[in-house]
Amino acid sequence: MPKTSSRAALRKEAPIPEAQPGSRRRFIQVAGTLSLSGAVGAPLAPACAAQPSGPGENEGKFDLGNFVLQSGATLREANLAFKTHGRLNAEKSNAIVYPTPYSAHHSDIEWPIGPGKALDPERYFIIVPDMLGNGLSSSPSNTAPPYDRARFPDVTIHDNVVAQHRLVTEGFGISRIALVVGWSMGAQQTFQWAVSYPEMVARIAPFCGTARTTPHNLVFLEGVKAALTADAAWMDGWYEKQPTRGIRAFARVYAGWGFSQPFYKQELYRQLGFSPLEDFLIGFWEQRFLRRDANNLLAMLWTWQLNDLGATPGCGGSLEHALGSIRAKTLVMAGETDLYFTPADIEYEASYIPGASFRVIPSVWGHQAGNGLNPVDSAFIDAALKSLLAS
Amino acid sequence: MPKTSSRAALRKEAPIPEAQPGSRRRFIQVAGTLSLSGAVGAPLAPACAAQPSGPGENEGKFDLGNFVLQSGATLREANLAFKTHGRLNAEKSNAIVYPTPYSAHHSDIEWPIGPGKALDPERYFIIVPDMLGNGLSSSPSNTAPPYDRARFPDVTIHDNVVAQHRLVTEGFGISRIALVVGWSMGAQQTFQWAVSYPEMVARIAPFCGTARTTPHNLVFLEGVKAALTADAAWMDGWYEKQPTRGIRAFARVYAGWGFSQPFYKQELYRQLGFSPLEDFLIGFWEQRFLRRDANNLLAMLWTWQLNDLGATPGCGGSLEHALGSIRAKTLVMAGETDLYFTPADIEYEASYIPGASFRVIPSVWGHQAGNGLNPVDSAFIDAALKSLLAS
Repeated sequence: MPKTSSRAALRKEAPIPEAQPGSRRRFIQVAGTLSLSGAVGAPLAPACAAQPSGPGENEGKFDLGNFVLQSGATLREANLAFKTHGRLNAEKSNAIVYPTPYSAHHSDIEWPIGPGKALDPERYFIIVPDMLGNGLSSSPSNTAPPYDRARFPDVTIHDNVVAQHRLVTEGFGISRIALVVGWSMGAQQTFQWAVSYPEMVARIAPFCGTARTTPHNLVFLEGVKAALTADAAWMDGWYEKQPTRGIRAFARVYAGWGFSQPFYKQELYRQLGFSPLEDFLIGFWEQRFLRRDANNLLAMLWTWQLNDLGATPGCGGSLEHALGSIRAKTLVMAGETDLYFTPADIEYEASYIPGASFRVIPSVWGHQAGNGLNPVDSAFIDAALKSLLAS
Repeated sequence: MPKTSSRAALRKEAPIPEAQPGSRRRFIQVAGTLSLSGAVGAPLAPACAAQPSGPGENEGKFDLGNFVLQSGATLREANLAFKTHGRLNAEKSNAIVYPTPYSAHHSDIEWPIGPGKALDPERYFIIVPDMLGNGLSSSPSNTAPPYDRARFPDVTIHDNVVAQHRLVTEGFGISRIALVVGWSMGAQQTFQWAVSYPEMVARIAPFCGTARTTPHNLVFLEGVKAALTADAAWMDGWYEKQPTRGIRAFARVYAGWGFSQPFYKQELYRQLGFSPLEDFLIGFWEQRFLRRDANNLLAMLWTWQLNDLGATPGCGGSLEHALGSIRAKTLVMAGETDLYFTPADIEYEASYIPGASFRVIPSVWGHQAGNGLNPVDSAFIDAALKSLLAS
């Protein structure tokens, strides 16, 4: 077990609740520290608390202590929430890291995990770390004053991966990862893993995401941000009640970007149980974001907008140099009709990764092709991941 | 000269000013009625008032009286603003109708008009009618109570074209139009002209627009609408001061849709005199909409969202039937990277128009390829229009 630095016990106060708790499983709050092993998956460092949440599943929080960010600011008494599936083998060689995408909780992205699937918990020990700002890990909504809410410091993708690295190494004692895989902002973290810890990562499979946020993607996010913050009830982040009018507007703007033009033309939202279109805008999109906290949404937007793999220390600011340093076996995928992580942008980046494979998911589900909503797309991704893991 | 029905004189009160008057030329307010001929282009009906605004140019308002809309509602004391370029010839055979697109005034779309260009005022009599709701023609901002502001009735593309038909026939005594041409919402009006008045229209050239608003396009507009109305200062349309925070959010959402992903990646906004990106978002996009009235923007959004050529009386609700009824010589163009009037959607519609040509503008300027901003795109469109006019 690697060193465990002195860390404060997990905070005991309850976090500020999300606007509408929407995760399928309630996050297990573990007060104090607890060391678990064997039945709950893997030995844990004292600061890494976890409890079973299902057969072969554990949820927990890893205490990051006073966590120094890439900006130089310190996120005090920080912690990283996570969930694991399956068991770490004796050689500690079967770990997969699967970070969460924008606004998601670990429970929202379990579609590729399961017996017989690429991320098979009977074979792999799958760690799903929650992104900082997502409401489970340290976030504007659950950080104590004075760095709460609008004062929550800016967090980068690099910061997230440094935190996850500590969970993986200090928490689980893992020194080699079979695969890092992620969709969307999860892909951003995947690229970062391969560049920051090349000696640890055997394979990566970033899909529907770029290593650096493109200018158009940034503009799209400016739009959703402007929609949310147009609501005066947002109060520059110091609201006592969620600015729901702004969050609904945010969701409605997002709706146009999340799926493709033909998806809407073909009314494929009916496959998700929504009809007519307005029901989809409310029942899918507004619901998706109303369950979240406005400051959390904005904090993760910042992370996304500023994402730049080239800013990794040692890469000299060059995206291409950073991509060229990747040593992991790489499979990059793009959604054919993705409007903000476009196939062209993703292919450009993949071309700089030595030996990387690039595949396009043939789908009209736009960016959401990678979100486990359309069985055909999910099967495509699952098969690609299996092929990568077998290589 | 066709019949001129009894109409009230043009309203004498000043319209509610726009948020920030931004048109290059101040609209000439003509009180009462005035008949002009010869030097100002063409004989005008008594209710059609116009004054010179430049060499060979005239601006005016056409009195529509109590104008019954497609919905059955009556727009009282309605009028249609317009500008003309050039002179109507003795045979009245050289008229071109060029309607305004979303949020534009007639002065905003003059790029294809000029000596040597396709819309050559030395050869053609070019009528640019302002869309209802644009702040010059009858609009929420300039209609007297009780149908002002939030109470302005819903106006369709069909309504606009019926009003324009009256201007053209009653106002100018024209029975045959050489060309109807328009970009974006101007294209919508162009399709409508060809279907509603097939005996009058020799040629049409709709570009970067569809005859029926697609579901995805509707969703994009839901987004901009939600951003504007998230601002409580909008007050459901009963504001005394423009809801500028909402309008700025509206503009910022629009920014992502208006140009393509590669446009932003290649920083082509520098060609428009903006840099860095944030300057473009403010100086181009916010400026574009801050000069408009919020209710006007919303009224035209309604027109756009509900646009459906198939709803033309007699078409049985069928878009394809309506397109199939077009007898004009037709050239349809699409912007290669247009994100909301996609080439695929436009080509689909063009395929139903007998004998229509379909051309793609090879451009990364997205929807704005048709807005006269990029000289290469403008030259492409100009050449295509010249070719159509010569046929």
